[in-house]
Amino acid sequence: MRIDVLSLFPEMFATPMHDSIIGKAIENKLIDLQVTNFRDFTQDKHRHVDDYPFGGGAGMLLQAQPIIDAYQDIKTRTEQAGIPNGKVILLDPAGKPFKQADAEALAHDQHLTFICGHYEGYDERIRSIVTDEYSIGDFVLTGGELPAMVMIDAISRLIPGVLGNQQSKVEESFSTGLLEEPQYTRPADFRGMKVPAVLMNGDHQKIALWNQKEALRRTYLRRPGLIDHRKLTSTQKRLLADVRIEEEEKADKAAADKKKSFTQD
Amino acid sequence: MRIDVLSLFPEMFATPMHDSIIGKAIENKLIDLQVTNFRDFTQDKHRHVDDYPFGGGAGMLLQAQPIIDAYQDIKTRTEQAGIPNGKVILLDPAGKPFKQADAEALAHDQHLTFICGHYEGYDERIRSIVTDEYSIGDFVLTGGELPAMVMIDAISRLIPGVLGNQQSKVEESFSTGLLEEPQYTRPADFRGMKVPAVLMNGDHQKIALWNQKEALRRTYLRRPGLIDHRKLTSTQKRLLADVRIEEEEKADKAAADKKKSFTQD
Repeated sequence: MRIDVLSLFPEMFATPMHDSIIGKAIENKLIDLQVTNFRDFTQDKHRHVDDYPFGGGAGMLLQAQPIIDAYQDIKTRTEQAGIPNGKVILLDPAGKPFKQADAEALAHDQHLTFICGHYEGYDERIRSIVTDEYSIGDFVLTGGELPAMVMIDAISRLIPGVLGNQQSKVEESFSTGLLEEPQYTRPADFRGMKVPAVLMNGDHQKIALWNQKEALRRTYLRRPGLIDHRKLTSTQKRLLADVRIEEEEKADKAAADKKKSFTQD
Repeated sequence: MRIDVLSLFPEMFATPMHDSIIGKAIENKLIDLQVTNFRDFTQDKHRHVDDYPFGGGAGMLLQAQPIIDAYQDIKTRTEQAGIPNGKVILLDPAGKPFKQADAEALAHDQHLTFICGHYEGYDERIRSIVTDEYSIGDFVLTGGELPAMVMIDAISRLIPGVLGNQQSKVEESFSTGLLEEPQYTRPADFRGMKVPAVLMNGDHQKIALWNQKEALRRTYLRRPGLIDHRKLTSTQKRLLADVRIEEEEKADKAAADKKKSFTQD
């Protein structure tokens, strides 16, 4: 996959995209990542890339010309190299929330271009070259560089060959729609904190049930909205009912203990 | 603010946390960022930090010992330096979804420690030192390093002095709960794409109304769930009613045009 990035801070991409798994994918030519500083395309003699907004208001806006011309240059060069024109993604808080399903869809593309702003808004006309707008979450960042890296990481790891046979636990968890159950590795007793006995007794049926129940418990307690009852097996439905009763009893007991301690005071 | 990070890939933080605004905040000693490789704390003679999960399953798990001992070392050193023990944040897909309100709360802290896993799960006992678990979104990444950088960026920019008087447009937008309206800077006519006339006529009342209406339109079309009717002013309610009618008429017209073109074929 060819990935182009337009940014005023191309150096930011150096180490995150060099070390670790994405770096290896670049080394193995599974990904060709090119970061372009669109300031190199400005026609302003002071090399400015931003200006005040029409109609007033705080902050500066990135101008259309440098970004659009930088993209045209990428388009010409990739076309010459026989790479089909791909999606042009604007990182913007007003974009569509980026989800795993988007990463899966984008991983099939041959060419992606990411446009990163930096603590400024965009002139609306930049959107004339944009095919997709994404936001990675409802928080404010100093620029689009980190969100672009997050999307590149999420997409790249799905490209065949990038992860090798690194089947991740998290992946499994996402496919069931539930959070992961608690997990344990050696030692069995770490400074008095012990691994639950069920995981050590080699009864795989019991272990599978425990895993399902604890995944349901964690999801029920932390992200109940993720539980889609229509997708649960009948075993899972029964386990979830048990979890509910257990957690309600725990809450009742905690409330009773609290009341008792107040009465005693 | 003192920020500690525990990671197997400390080099990943080098360039994103050096260039741009966060780098300047570090240079100006507003932030003291220390990244520790917890592999340096392993007691394994082969320097392994992970092992197979008890009870079977795919993937490897990070062991408790190296991470907990690395954190104890940070705790001792920061206590000696007179820095109060702060929150210990685990980056994990099962964590609480990170939002702007969390960034605002965390920006008041004096010390934060981030624990980053890397394409592996955590031994549950690592959670014994964790005070908060966060996820930046419902997507799978190769590690916790990029999410940690995203959180550090979102938090750091809220620390007084970091942004200077860079009042960002995005910020304003977040405080109203609406997406930003389209914005324009020079030139007024860029290759035939013109700035809306209302923004050029200097009538500030009209401009303010246009901005509110277009912010409502963008939010209505893209993220209707963000609109909280109880928080809208009566002007905004009237503008939103107009937007709804306009967009419905547009949709009806588009449907009629489509039907017409089918009939003509």
